[in-house]
Amino acid sequence: MVKERLFTPGPVPLPPQVIRALGQQIIHHRTPEFTNIFLQTRKNLQKLLNTSRDVLTFASSGTGAMEACIVNFLSRGDRVLVINAGKFGERWRDLGLSYGLDVIDYQIEWGKTYDKERVKEILTDNPDTKGILVQHSETSTTTLHDLKFLAEMSNSLEDCLLIVDGITSVGVYRVFPEEIGIDLLITGSQKALMLPPGLSVLYYSEKAQRRLDKSDLPKYYFSVKAESKKQAKGQTAYTPAINLIVALSESLKMILDEGLENLEKRHEILAQMTREAMKELGLRLLSESPSNSATGVFTPEGIDADLFRKELQKIGVRVAGGQDHLKGKIIRIAHMGYFDYLDMIEVISAIEIILHKMGYKVELGKGVKRAQEILINNLQGVT
Amino acid sequence: MVKERLFTPGPVPLPPQVIRALGQQIIHHRTPEFTNIFLQTRKNLQKLLNTSRDVLTFASSGTGAMEACIVNFLSRGDRVLVINAGKFGERWRDLGLSYGLDVIDYQIEWGKTYDKERVKEILTDNPDTKGILVQHSETSTTTLHDLKFLAEMSNSLEDCLLIVDGITSVGVYRVFPEEIGIDLLITGSQKALMLPPGLSVLYYSEKAQRRLDKSDLPKYYFSVKAESKKQAKGQTAYTPAINLIVALSESLKMILDEGLENLEKRHEILAQMTREAMKELGLRLLSESPSNSATGVFTPEGIDADLFRKELQKIGVRVAGGQDHLKGKIIRIAHMGYFDYLDMIEVISAIEIILHKMGYKVELGKGVKRAQEILINNLQGVT
Repeated sequence: MVKERLFTPGPVPLPPQVIRALGQQIIHHRTPEFTNIFLQTRKNLQKLLNTSRDVLTFASSGTGAMEACIVNFLSRGDRVLVINAGKFGERWRDLGLSYGLDVIDYQIEWGKTYDKERVKEILTDNPDTKGILVQHSETSTTTLHDLKFLAEMSNSLEDCLLIVDGITSVGVYRVFPEEIGIDLLITGSQKALMLPPGLSVLYYSEKAQRRLDKSDLPKYYFSVKAESKKQAKGQTAYTPAINLIVALSESLKMILDEGLENLEKRHEILAQMTREAMKELGLRLLSESPSNSATGVFTPEGIDADLFRKELQKIGVRVAGGQDHLKGKIIRIAHMGYFDYLDMIEVISAIEIILHKMGYKVELGKGVKRAQEILINNLQGVT
Repeated sequence: MVKERLFTPGPVPLPPQVIRALGQQIIHHRTPEFTNIFLQTRKNLQKLLNTSRDVLTFASSGTGAMEACIVNFLSRGDRVLVINAGKFGERWRDLGLSYGLDVIDYQIEWGKTYDKERVKEILTDNPDTKGILVQHSETSTTTLHDLKFLAEMSNSLEDCLLIVDGITSVGVYRVFPEEIGIDLLITGSQKALMLPPGLSVLYYSEKAQRRLDKSDLPKYYFSVKAESKKQAKGQTAYTPAINLIVALSESLKMILDEGLENLEKRHEILAQMTREAMKELGLRLLSESPSNSATGVFTPEGIDADLFRKELQKIGVRVAGGQDHLKGKIIRIAHMGYFDYLDMIEVISAIEIILHKMGYKVELGKGVKRAQEILINNLQGVT
């Protein structure tokens, strides 16, 4: 008997509270009961983002909310800068192109973050840029992009929005859009919100709001105006993902009970344990600016990462692999959402076991020890 | 203690098998396990629609699949005829207008179906019509629109698609698109498929497929081409609503085990029991062409339908009300999906009790008796 453990960067494991909420008879959405849950959840999403502004949900996966950013706040021919540093950067680009935007595709080597000078250069050359599109945490390369600098850059232009995919950063970091200067921020349900996929979230700033009447791109299902009017009253323009909203009310309760500072600290420790253990084992990290949501790491020379993943599965650990040219080269270990410290010890130990099994010279327990040390050093702060 | 019973036309009650499937730990979507479930489910959706063609799912509510019909198969300026006989007819119109279609808005009194001569006239005057958009079952008025005639009309034109919202007809009737001549058929999860909302389904004909390369409307999240390529292999372009797919595999098993002929017959009997009981109580049906998915009925003169619904709730029955100008005038009783014969006896009896309570002269048990008679007359065929 082997237990299935998900260490994939989405979906992540569901807490029992969420599973219980999902495994219930449906309630009707045009009822005071649902409206109460919806409004409470909306309020808690606002707490999560430290804002009193509109925070909308859509019955879609995260890509739907990405589309909502484009079709509601931009117009045909608008010039936008895409920070394209991985699979999801490509998605911003492709979405922009699909809707006829004039996309400046700033391609960055996978695992690296943007160069400040280059961004400055591009924006100086293109002062009419209407949006900077970026992943806060690029899941495909486990890379964190600094937002503060981009917010400054965006603000220095006449009418530019900072548009942030926070799918694997919201709930890992304290992502407070008003403090940072984010104009559009989206996230999805199957990451740090600890739910199944099928629900997405959108915040928009006052500056972004002024674009709503100007945008000439067609929209209907992802209409922010239509949803905004309804959701403020606890309803939705189209049928909501009822059971995900009910489950979200549970997971947000957990998140707010933990406290956003503790939540961020926990993720930092989980990430540090993982990263330092991998380095201790002699493995090389993929990212020069690693995100606390997941850790990408190269398998040693001569060990195919996808074979390595198969071996891990045999002892009960599922991690993700690399995409495109990183396929077979890296594994990605998630530590966002419903993960605690001993979960990391499990996955690190499993990696040691399989490294050993596949003939890599490894001192068993060395990575685990390093992770334990980090945990103990931090315990005072967290227990 | 009063039990909550949903008799609303979406969401409808979930069967225990579905609740169990939902209340499980999540599985990852990039795994053979999910791919197997997805492909099996796809095959069963094909059985439901009696087709071997592509049947796609989207992580969205039904409106999302309606949007997919527009953006993938039509182009800016295309003339379309909307059979607008209720709230969802209006949605076809509004969607069409949002995407710049040239919409012929054929408005029909709520509760009535289209006039064949009028349709013929419109299409004769507009031989360049590229699509006829209709609800098979218009949920807001509980009205069934005949599709055969529209299919003939559509076929008589040079390049016209019959585009059908089957959200409350698929799983109630045998809706076989190839037999009927439907080019695009969509449905949603929270109706006869007995799931929570958040999943939609799209079938497209060979004729429709030829439009895919011609359509000039922008799309990304609802791209049929992108999904088609992936879903044939058991994957999806963007993260699927994993737990709804898993639950769909359960509900489709139930539907196919019952058999499509039996399923249709059961819905017919449930609907007939309800309609005949209401008439027996002296109430007037809303629709001249009633659908077997739900029954709309006027409350007696002097009894506000929304007050009536509140009284029903007190004894455990939730039905829907009327929308727009029918608000306060009608109630709508659902009988699609997870309903059996005795469920109808419950709701009919509850209606008798509340009619009596609200001072309407009613012979208690009269509606129930009529429903029982219908059931007994049909029992030979169904047990």
